[in-house]
Amino acid sequence: MDAEANPQERLATALSARLADVDGLIRERMASEHAPRIPAVSDHLIGAGGKRIRPMLTLAAAELCGYRGRHDAHLAAAVEFIHTATLLHDDVVDESRQRRGRPTANLLWDNKSSVLVGDYLFARSFQLMVETGTLRVLDILSSAAATIAEGEVLQLTAMSDLATGEETYLRIVRGKTAALFSAAAEAGGVIAGARDEVTRALFTYGDALGIAFQMVDDLLDWQGTEVIGKNAGDDFRERKMTLPIIRAVAAADDEERAFWTRTIAKGRQEDGDLEQAARLLERHGALASTRKAALGWAERAQAALKILPATELRDILHDLGDYVVMRIR
Amino acid sequence: MDAEANPQERLATALSARLADVDGLIRERMASEHAPRIPAVSDHLIGAGGKRIRPMLTLAAAELCGYRGRHDAHLAAAVEFIHTATLLHDDVVDESRQRRGRPTANLLWDNKSSVLVGDYLFARSFQLMVETGTLRVLDILSSAAATIAEGEVLQLTAMSDLATGEETYLRIVRGKTAALFSAAAEAGGVIAGARDEVTRALFTYGDALGIAFQMVDDLLDWQGTEVIGKNAGDDFRERKMTLPIIRAVAAADDEERAFWTRTIAKGRQEDGDLEQAARLLERHGALASTRKAALGWAERAQAALKILPATELRDILHDLGDYVVMRIR
Repeated sequence: MDAEANPQERLATALSARLADVDGLIRERMASEHAPRIPAVSDHLIGAGGKRIRPMLTLAAAELCGYRGRHDAHLAAAVEFIHTATLLHDDVVDESRQRRGRPTANLLWDNKSSVLVGDYLFARSFQLMVETGTLRVLDILSSAAATIAEGEVLQLTAMSDLATGEETYLRIVRGKTAALFSAAAEAGGVIAGARDEVTRALFTYGDALGIAFQMVDDLLDWQGTEVIGKNAGDDFRERKMTLPIIRAVAAADDEERAFWTRTIAKGRQEDGDLEQAARLLERHGALASTRKAALGWAERAQAALKILPATELRDILHDLGDYVVMRIR
Repeated sequence: MDAEANPQERLATALSARLADVDGLIRERMASEHAPRIPAVSDHLIGAGGKRIRPMLTLAAAELCGYRGRHDAHLAAAVEFIHTATLLHDDVVDESRQRRGRPTANLLWDNKSSVLVGDYLFARSFQLMVETGTLRVLDILSSAAATIAEGEVLQLTAMSDLATGEETYLRIVRGKTAALFSAAAEAGGVIAGARDEVTRALFTYGDALGIAFQMVDDLLDWQGTEVIGKNAGDDFRERKMTLPIIRAVAAADDEERAFWTRTIAKGRQEDGDLEQAARLLERHGALASTRKAALGWAERAQAALKILPATELRDILHDLGDYVVMRIR
């Protein structure tokens, strides 16, 4: 094990044998003999080198709970398919042009292909879950899929709405990230036959990790990042009610409120507004308090792991909690 | 029972008690406490008075196989949700403006809402299936969902392609209509614990009925219909390789082939082309042979019913076979 490797890489190394099975299943099941556009579109995204963090959560949870069968790979592939399907649909919804440093599928082909190939992968993911023979994983992942879609619809309607509070924000964040993280981890425990207390802890780990991850993303938007295709202030320009803005709006005086109404609610943005927004966040400590919230969620994720056996794999998941918030430490 | 009623109405009357349960479940499960746009969009489509033919196939199959539980309603609601989800996504893919005589959801709201609410209903449908406690219905309906998406992708790429043959056509038709008909009927038998021979017959009934239905649609496109939002020749203008055109192309001489290449493959259509296309179909008997094929599938559907107990419900399903092709008799 390379001591210099980050927790994500260490996780991939620790799970490499099972990950190879997952990749094999992904290749096999995204194929379509009759409609070659399906693997073309799928592979554009899946082959672009996603980090497989969600399927790794499933594999790690199953292993930590002593699973010795082969269906963890089916479950992990199903999780990755759901993730890929939501990315394809998100890019249509957001009219995105870049993803993972490459042009999006909706740009290379068309919106139609992205919608339909997403539907195909979603259906295939449920077929994979059926093969595990465990109804409860279908329950967990179909509920997660509903939460994801609901969160996205909520984002459509609640973003740009200054009345959006932290409860709605959390719901949206769970839809964007945490619901699939938590379902991926929980389902891994369920397939291993872990007791309820353990599967609940796995759920909490994934949920808290996903929320921390998204809050970090919200923060980094104000710092500029090296991530290709995202510039500082994108969220502000897209009028998204991220946690820093929600907190600054909550603390705003009348004049500041007028500023947020014009720039976020009405979307009339001018030169200098981004800088002014940043000053208001600073004035109310909105970035500092969001940072604190993110660190708190990462700690919650780590605390949930205590119920699991103290193995190297558990240590890596623990370190993953630190890694997610490392960029804001 | 009203002797004048058509088989669809008779089916609704015979199943009215169970249908009320299905409608109750549909209302309950399409709700979203947090994202009111979800029931708004769903209800726009579901409330517009679809004929509930697919859920009725599920209910009828379950009853014919002696089912006495309550989960047939969950299964039937799941089938209707999958159908509604595919309609929402189809209208985005086809850029449709009208459905069931009303403006489409993508027009009233936006493509985003149609994509995401479709995803939500799809997820909810799997939750409903989980409640039946029967993995095999999840297998059947997830496979049907994959066939539907695959057929739609195939339609994107194979239509306007003069090389499209009858095998590909059948695959597309199964995706558009027959896959959900057959899955709806088969799953109804499965939930009732029917033996394999019976569930296979139910599959065949739904499959053949769906294919006949789609072929009738292809034919009516050449006759003009009273259906709101569809005019004679729409398929030709949209360059779709429907069965009549596939058969006319197969029999075309060089000059005719040049006509089809220009109008379908290249899409350069002029005044008078629709009339010329109709003449070519007539010359090669393509409408007559498509009509014969549709009648053959309707008969196949009816023949599959013989294995079921001879009840009034079975008679109605039999008459539904006649009803589907009545418009071309």
